[in-house]
Amino acid sequence: MATKGEITKERLLTEAALIIRRKGFTATSVSDLIAATGVKKGSLYFHFPSKDELGLAVLERSRDKFMEFFENALTAETPGECLSKFFDAVVSIHSKSGFVGGCIFGNTALEMSDADKRFAEFVDRLFAAMTTRLESVIAAAQEYGQVRADLPADTLAQQIVMTLEGGIMLARLRKDETPLRLGFDTLKVFLELES
Amino acid sequence: MATKGEITKERLLTEAALIIRRKGFTATSVSDLIAATGVKKGSLYFHFPSKDELGLAVLERSRDKFMEFFENALTAETPGECLSKFFDAVVSIHSKSGFVGGCIFGNTALEMSDADKRFAEFVDRLFAAMTTRLESVIAAAQEYGQVRADLPADTLAQQIVMTLEGGIMLARLRKDETPLRLGFDTLKVFLELES
Repeated sequence: MATKGEITKERLLTEAALIIRRKGFTATSVSDLIAATGVKKGSLYFHFPSKDELGLAVLERSRDKFMEFFENALTAETPGECLSKFFDAVVSIHSKSGFVGGCIFGNTALEMSDADKRFAEFVDRLFAAMTTRLESVIAAAQEYGQVRADLPADTLAQQIVMTLEGGIMLARLRKDETPLRLGFDTLKVFLELES
Repeated sequence: MATKGEITKERLLTEAALIIRRKGFTATSVSDLIAATGVKKGSLYFHFPSKDELGLAVLERSRDKFMEFFENALTAETPGECLSKFFDAVVSIHSKSGFVGGCIFGNTALEMSDADKRFAEFVDRLFAAMTTRLESVIAAAQEYGQVRADLPADTLAQQIVMTLEGGIMLARLRKDETPLRLGFDTLKVFLELES
């Protein structure tokens, strides 16, 4: 059973993730977190000695949740279907949130890249892991003849990550899934994806 | 000749653009600006009654500068060459800054999309204008047989904007032009661009 302390920590991480995704790390204040959770200031600082540590813990937690989502989305009969299912899952999860908040990793990349190395390195490693995982699916799809084979799998994987981040940016600005959906549909044509 | 007031306003806009691009809008304080410019607080508030107004003025100025850069980059003998030249110019300008700061419009998109409608609308309009301009070049390149014609010009234009923003994000995280350069090179293959 979770202890009282664990429950408090969990609540802080969940609320902080929601607020940071929407407002950004810098604009999120300790008072915001106290107001949202009812957790006392002393208790907050007991679990997270600084706002930076809380921010990095939120990123770690978001990474674990994203990786779970990612592996679920990449489960299908053929590698080509895995890619299609992943594109659909990304559009669907962001549509459900009304395109509020966007991608916490992309947001952190643009907000913190030049401000704090630890945040930049975290997000860089996450995108690298994502690219490597997509690369393995693409390589398998190339073997199956479901994706063009004249370009390296890692190059195509990186193109997916860029389209994903650029697409979420445009969809979030317009609060409309069209740019992201169209981005993936066009990418499917570019990849010559059969699924 | 510029008045003293105009010179002060100009200096404020130039410095604010540099700091906001690097640190983000929220993390940029009035004290940062005073320290960077030596302009007195009263004078700053005379020119820009609020931080929001300064931020929007910085975006307008960045838009004007970007549009000038954009039109220069899009000047070449054939539409296909215009596209290649534009890709090279984007990599070059960001390499020169050491991939510090990235794209102020993309940064603002992710930082302010859900926080302030005026900022979101500004960036959305800018990306729309950029897409429309690229669309006209692509349509001409399609006429010339320099770009694949089986996908609509506006769809391809939007794909360029997404790759650009996603590519700048990755290059900025790694302080390395490779992701952006590779993104454009791959896009050229996808577009079947001949220039």
